[in-house]
Amino acid sequence: MTPKIKDTEKTTVGIVRTHYHTFDSIALECGETLGPVTVAYETYGELNEQKSNALLVLHALTGDANAAGTHEGLNNAGWWDSMIGPGKALDTRRYFVICSNVLGGCRGTTGPSSINPETGKPFGLDFPAISINDMVDLQKMLIESLGIDKLLSVVGGSMGGMQALSWLARYPEKIRSAITIATALRHSPQQIAFNEAGRQAVMADPNWNSGCYYNGPAPDRGLAVARMIGHITYMSSASMAEKFGRLKKEKARPTKFAADFEVEGYLHYRSDQFVKRFDANSYLYITKAVDNFDVTEGKPLHDMLHGVKASALIIAFRSDWLYPASQSKEILKACRLAGVEATYCEVDSDYGHDAFLLEVDEETHLISHFLKKIS
Amino acid sequence: MTPKIKDTEKTTVGIVRTHYHTFDSIALECGETLGPVTVAYETYGELNEQKSNALLVLHALTGDANAAGTHEGLNNAGWWDSMIGPGKALDTRRYFVICSNVLGGCRGTTGPSSINPETGKPFGLDFPAISINDMVDLQKMLIESLGIDKLLSVVGGSMGGMQALSWLARYPEKIRSAITIATALRHSPQQIAFNEAGRQAVMADPNWNSGCYYNGPAPDRGLAVARMIGHITYMSSASMAEKFGRLKKEKARPTKFAADFEVEGYLHYRSDQFVKRFDANSYLYITKAVDNFDVTEGKPLHDMLHGVKASALIIAFRSDWLYPASQSKEILKACRLAGVEATYCEVDSDYGHDAFLLEVDEETHLISHFLKKIS
Repeated sequence: MTPKIKDTEKTTVGIVRTHYHTFDSIALECGETLGPVTVAYETYGELNEQKSNALLVLHALTGDANAAGTHEGLNNAGWWDSMIGPGKALDTRRYFVICSNVLGGCRGTTGPSSINPETGKPFGLDFPAISINDMVDLQKMLIESLGIDKLLSVVGGSMGGMQALSWLARYPEKIRSAITIATALRHSPQQIAFNEAGRQAVMADPNWNSGCYYNGPAPDRGLAVARMIGHITYMSSASMAEKFGRLKKEKARPTKFAADFEVEGYLHYRSDQFVKRFDANSYLYITKAVDNFDVTEGKPLHDMLHGVKASALIIAFRSDWLYPASQSKEILKACRLAGVEATYCEVDSDYGHDAFLLEVDEETHLISHFLKKIS
Repeated sequence: MTPKIKDTEKTTVGIVRTHYHTFDSIALECGETLGPVTVAYETYGELNEQKSNALLVLHALTGDANAAGTHEGLNNAGWWDSMIGPGKALDTRRYFVICSNVLGGCRGTTGPSSINPETGKPFGLDFPAISINDMVDLQKMLIESLGIDKLLSVVGGSMGGMQALSWLARYPEKIRSAITIATALRHSPQQIAFNEAGRQAVMADPNWNSGCYYNGPAPDRGLAVARMIGHITYMSSASMAEKFGRLKKEKARPTKFAADFEVEGYLHYRSDQFVKRFDANSYLYITKAVDNFDVTEGKPLHDMLHGVKASALIIAFRSDWLYPASQSKEILKACRLAGVEATYCEVDSDYGHDAFLLEVDEETHLISHFLKKIS
């Protein structure tokens, strides 16, 4: 395929659509077997004849398969549209980019809101416990169904980075490289604690009803509180100060304790948007998978990546206090101890954890060079 | 009064009891008048003849008048018992120590759970909006009723530090010094955001019922989530890692999504204890007072303490990310710009914001020397 646009010219992948692939079953880490299981995915660019140019993009906590482009009739672009497309970091003139919704999600892939074939009703809490490794296993099944034996790279931020680490540690022969952004080998107790406060907010909502709410009102207020907690941790104190200061909203407050500071209005707006698109049970299952994830599996750091031939690019952000740079340096250390070729970069950003969605120029520079080097 | 014990010997103030003083009314910053208004307070040590040895201790968000000693029949000591007593930092052989519950509280001082004399029922949301300055005004009324014209010092951490700043800026002639610990001139948007997530958790609980819950079940689950958020922000990531690591609770989990990490169990335990002693509406009113507080009142920093003769001791903690040392340095800057004699100390602690309750040795050293110097 001859690139028809200049290297400096960046455009969108345009109108895209989500594909679905259904497998008979998947064996889960918890010991249970789940089936049938459907995975929602999208692809951008073209797979070359050697099937050697495939990149797998791994989404974060609440992402979905729509990483780039827009769906027919809709306006909003995919969650990493700034990074995927002709001339962009994941250049669709060179690479075949795949993104799938994670197992346990609510955006097309089988999750707790899917119909349980045994009952004809949504799973709710009958959905089995899932892990980051299970998410990766389903991705591996998808990749194999597409006829791809080896991925050029797996790339993800935050929970997506954990999936990249799982690929690197468990299926190193299936990837030529992994790119981890703002992530960790495992959650610290502080990271677990924030997730737990969010889960408690969801479960405190009487509409949650032990996960059985699909025929009635959803636990939107509880999920909104969980998302507010999340959003606070995604920004740095400095970026909040820059964006909102102590500005007050102009409108008079209708009731006592209605939001009056702009930062409060922002949290309300973002969480109100979120609950329209996300399932509360998926939030519980996925945050628990993240908290339980430990790529070291209790082994010493130098054993974790023993014998791995794939290389790694590790990106962190100075102001990210949720996934601090120290955690990315631990990933680097694990690579160094195992002789894995690894590049580490701490981007000097004020955006906190959100930087992985916002520092497009820096990430483009780092990732496009890394991909050119290995391809 | 001759000290009967050695300087190095530290003992408790023993059995204490709470006193109550009722005033006809108080004029509030919001423009409303509240009356009658009762203030709950305790005193330790003896007021000297010149009435020159009085220290006012100012409690944080959820504290109360019982700063030291124990109540008859109870086991738990006051919230700052480690700092107040014979031979301790606030040495009751030398000083007369006063601590009162803040206006809007629920531990004896008039607040939203008090009876509204106009209706014979608890105020609920009919309670007027209160401010940190209002809390200080009520303290000033109490001090005057005790016949004290000038306090040797006002001392408080976190929200208590804001009250100390309000005393320093608004009534400098009434104090010889102020001691602020782990506090700020005003909340950053991040600090506001954490409080707002907590308020939303309370108000999302249907038992909250727009503040009318005193004849039925209280919004305990919502308040518990708010407190969990609080507790996460009170600890540093390092102290959580030290205390809990990724240890799992030994007991089998009774249900999916029950707490399994020890850090989760800790949050549950602490928040369960909290809701037994605290009123949800007080939580809303007081957090809002904290968020609205701005001791600069929009003036440039150099005008804030113009002409103030009192001196200041400013204490911060290295690992406190909720009230970072940078905010205490701003207080120091305001003092320096106004020529206020100020001492600043950043204690090298891993305990996060909780350090103000835990770093007893360091605080004792700093505060006892400061008090000896000014008295």
